[in-house]
Amino acid sequence: MDAAEFRRRGKEMVDYVADYLENIEKRQVYPDVEPGYLRSLIPEEAPEEAESYEDVFKDIERVIMPGVTHWHSPYFYAYFPTANSFPAMLADMLCGAIGCIGFSWAASPACTELETVMLDWLGKMLKLPEDFLAGTEGRGGGVIQGTASEATLIALLAARSKIVKLIQADHPDRSETHIISKLVAYSSDQAHSSVERAGLIGGLRMKKIPTDNKFSVRGDALQKVLEEDRATGLIPFFFCATLGTTPSCAFDCVTELGPICNAEKIWMHIDAAYAGSAFICPEFRPLLNGIEFADSFNFNPHKWLLVNFDCSAMWVKNRSDIIGAFKMEPLYLKHDHQESGNHSHWQIPLGRRFRSLKIWFVFRMYGLKGLQAYIRKHVGLAKEFESLVRADQRFEISADVVLGLVCFRLKGSNELNETLLKRINNARKIHLVPCQLAGKFVLRFAVCARTTESRHVQEAWCHISHLASELLQELPH
Amino acid sequence: MDAAEFRRRGKEMVDYVADYLENIEKRQVYPDVEPGYLRSLIPEEAPEEAESYEDVFKDIERVIMPGVTHWHSPYFYAYFPTANSFPAMLADMLCGAIGCIGFSWAASPACTELETVMLDWLGKMLKLPEDFLAGTEGRGGGVIQGTASEATLIALLAARSKIVKLIQADHPDRSETHIISKLVAYSSDQAHSSVERAGLIGGLRMKKIPTDNKFSVRGDALQKVLEEDRATGLIPFFFCATLGTTPSCAFDCVTELGPICNAEKIWMHIDAAYAGSAFICPEFRPLLNGIEFADSFNFNPHKWLLVNFDCSAMWVKNRSDIIGAFKMEPLYLKHDHQESGNHSHWQIPLGRRFRSLKIWFVFRMYGLKGLQAYIRKHVGLAKEFESLVRADQRFEISADVVLGLVCFRLKGSNELNETLLKRINNARKIHLVPCQLAGKFVLRFAVCARTTESRHVQEAWCHISHLASELLQELPH
Repeated sequence: MDAAEFRRRGKEMVDYVADYLENIEKRQVYPDVEPGYLRSLIPEEAPEEAESYEDVFKDIERVIMPGVTHWHSPYFYAYFPTANSFPAMLADMLCGAIGCIGFSWAASPACTELETVMLDWLGKMLKLPEDFLAGTEGRGGGVIQGTASEATLIALLAARSKIVKLIQADHPDRSETHIISKLVAYSSDQAHSSVERAGLIGGLRMKKIPTDNKFSVRGDALQKVLEEDRATGLIPFFFCATLGTTPSCAFDCVTELGPICNAEKIWMHIDAAYAGSAFICPEFRPLLNGIEFADSFNFNPHKWLLVNFDCSAMWVKNRSDIIGAFKMEPLYLKHDHQESGNHSHWQIPLGRRFRSLKIWFVFRMYGLKGLQAYIRKHVGLAKEFESLVRADQRFEISADVVLGLVCFRLKGSNELNETLLKRINNARKIHLVPCQLAGKFVLRFAVCARTTESRHVQEAWCHISHLASELLQELPH
Repeated sequence: MDAAEFRRRGKEMVDYVADYLENIEKRQVYPDVEPGYLRSLIPEEAPEEAESYEDVFKDIERVIMPGVTHWHSPYFYAYFPTANSFPAMLADMLCGAIGCIGFSWAASPACTELETVMLDWLGKMLKLPEDFLAGTEGRGGGVIQGTASEATLIALLAARSKIVKLIQADHPDRSETHIISKLVAYSSDQAHSSVERAGLIGGLRMKKIPTDNKFSVRGDALQKVLEEDRATGLIPFFFCATLGTTPSCAFDCVTELGPICNAEKIWMHIDAAYAGSAFICPEFRPLLNGIEFADSFNFNPHKWLLVNFDCSAMWVKNRSDIIGAFKMEPLYLKHDHQESGNHSHWQIPLGRRFRSLKIWFVFRMYGLKGLQAYIRKHVGLAKEFESLVRADQRFEISADVVLGLVCFRLKGSNELNETLLKRINNARKIHLVPCQLAGKFVLRFAVCARTTESRHVQEAWCHISHLASELLQELPH
């Protein structure tokens, strides 16, 4: 395919994309296919000879679309949102064309520099403490990671490297292996599975701190475990606080936890993967209070800030903590401006796309006010759904509704709720996933799509309520 | 921006992208900017109000392009190539629109299934042993990672987990920490920095095996170190072989190394990040001989197989080795078809884009023959450059030219060659990076761009030769 054909096919694809997104609610949100459906629809091997673009294009509807879960349908309420906006898609087209691998400043100065400045823009939008910004002389700064999982892992590894150095400075005789065998990291018992996984990857002991009745870690709970662990000779070194947990969007109490971590020289990382986007609104910013005690902070603009995946924003107070843990510089990566920033030292992969273009396009095309309006609209829709649930005596709300997630269930057994969820998802009209809260099977209703409106939420509730009625009528009295 | 405006702006962007790539050789390959150039060109904060698309668009040329290193210019010969093709860009547009996060089968069945089948297609193109294919009943299979660094790390961690379980099965009293403290992994002294970094991340001892005069690890060199290490009580468990090293595209001798690893129960991972693409040509496939001894294999179609970054293909013989090392399944990720494939268990990030679309589009639009022709063209251009160097008595070739990389230098001191490289890069006509081979400072000429033709190579050589003449004339006799 030459540039001339790309001009034609690219424009057709732009129309296909626009058609897809404009009409997405006409598609069934969750597919009907069974596992293995796709293999029989296409050849067993790649073709020897080139095929025509027409043949490839028509297979999108024949092969791909029947197996797509439509995350951007206004009938999709599962997991948490993933962002999708037109400005981000335009920026991604440009990113693909430039196609640079930004592993050092020299590999494409614009790629490194725009990223640093965009993370400063975003940090200011969140009113992060000055320490986290790069500016022209700051010691902190931000970087784009692929996912929150990577950010947590990087923070954990940087903390590991820092504590080992700290202990070895006082006790040069203690081996790294021995120190690591004594280390212990903590997170909420509501923390995302990726936090525990980070511990597994780093070969580090990881403990879960029990949460209170709001599913939030409090200072005294951490303090208690710290004392027990110190008494047995363990070395606490890392705490991952969650702002907006995956099951119920609960918030660890970082204003209590932060001072403890600081006093005990424990690295506090804050994972606000979903909730972080909301902190650009003054009314939600208090949820981030305590950030001043943190060593690192992360959230995903690719979830709720209209920047397509992947774009996970991470800041640290001391760049040198992160860079020191991973820096490697073979000759083929050395260049004349070594100290001008090299985000590869901040992350697991060496290669990186020009992802800051998406942030730049989206922030400028929406403006701060447009982004705030978007967050508020989703929170409003969640509150609307909450009211509908609360007005129905058969149901209960299972956790405070703070942002765009509503956790709810039928009053009654877990089995009853499992059956209700199964019927909801089998009906294919809307799509939800469950969670477990204090031993209860709970349904999660997350406002996800950019195009979700009040009418969709009302319709979803009618549907749920109707299925619940059917289910309850079948039960023996 | 609504769908209607996206239709217009998207088509403009398609033209911009086509213009950029059609005329890329008119741009200076390496930018003139100094570190920090970008910050002063844009505001210090994100705008409050939305800006017009015209304003954003015109800043691409004002702010971004002056700081771009043009990786797809036919004057770019640095690092290794990164792929860029029109079919891949079309597929990426579709990927952005669907915007699913494929962390489980249910999260978008097409995303998981196409990936599995595409990795089978690609595995067949490489004539991988059947063990590495998923098929409908295989125990092996492939997955798309972001980068080779991630693939190496995943293989290392899976091997760690496997050896710990194996040892604990015989010695239930031995703690994981104790076992890990005895483990030792190996790679070539020519291996990419990311291999050493993987060891750092996993908290694992990593040793470099010395290479022979072809920069390749031989069986006896590994055997010697293994014996020494076993004698001191260490437990060898992992060897990362490189096919196509970054400095000189050297090949470890896996036909010798593989049987040793198998006999010693050492996980052999093969990293063929750059060279792997060439193995689709029958004449280069012998370079992969010995693959039958490997436990895992990885290369980057995003380097040399026309699939835009990121797309790093990894295969394992036993999926369960990888999955077992990382599996975590909270309730919100459970679904009815749990066993239907979940690539998130195979990688560091939980979220993943629909990257297999790019493979599907590219393989079909080029066909196997088209891809083979592309590889052969690049190898031919490298051979052409090699002949030019060899015909000039002032220069020497520093390593065998096997694929698309030529390592060369002026006969003489490292200082002389450093000066030559500085002059080449300062002239901004072409862009190269150096490497170190056996203590010598060497220039690397990697054929990179899709549009590089014989005339560009000839022109590059004339330029280098001219700068060398100038330099040599300045020297005292």
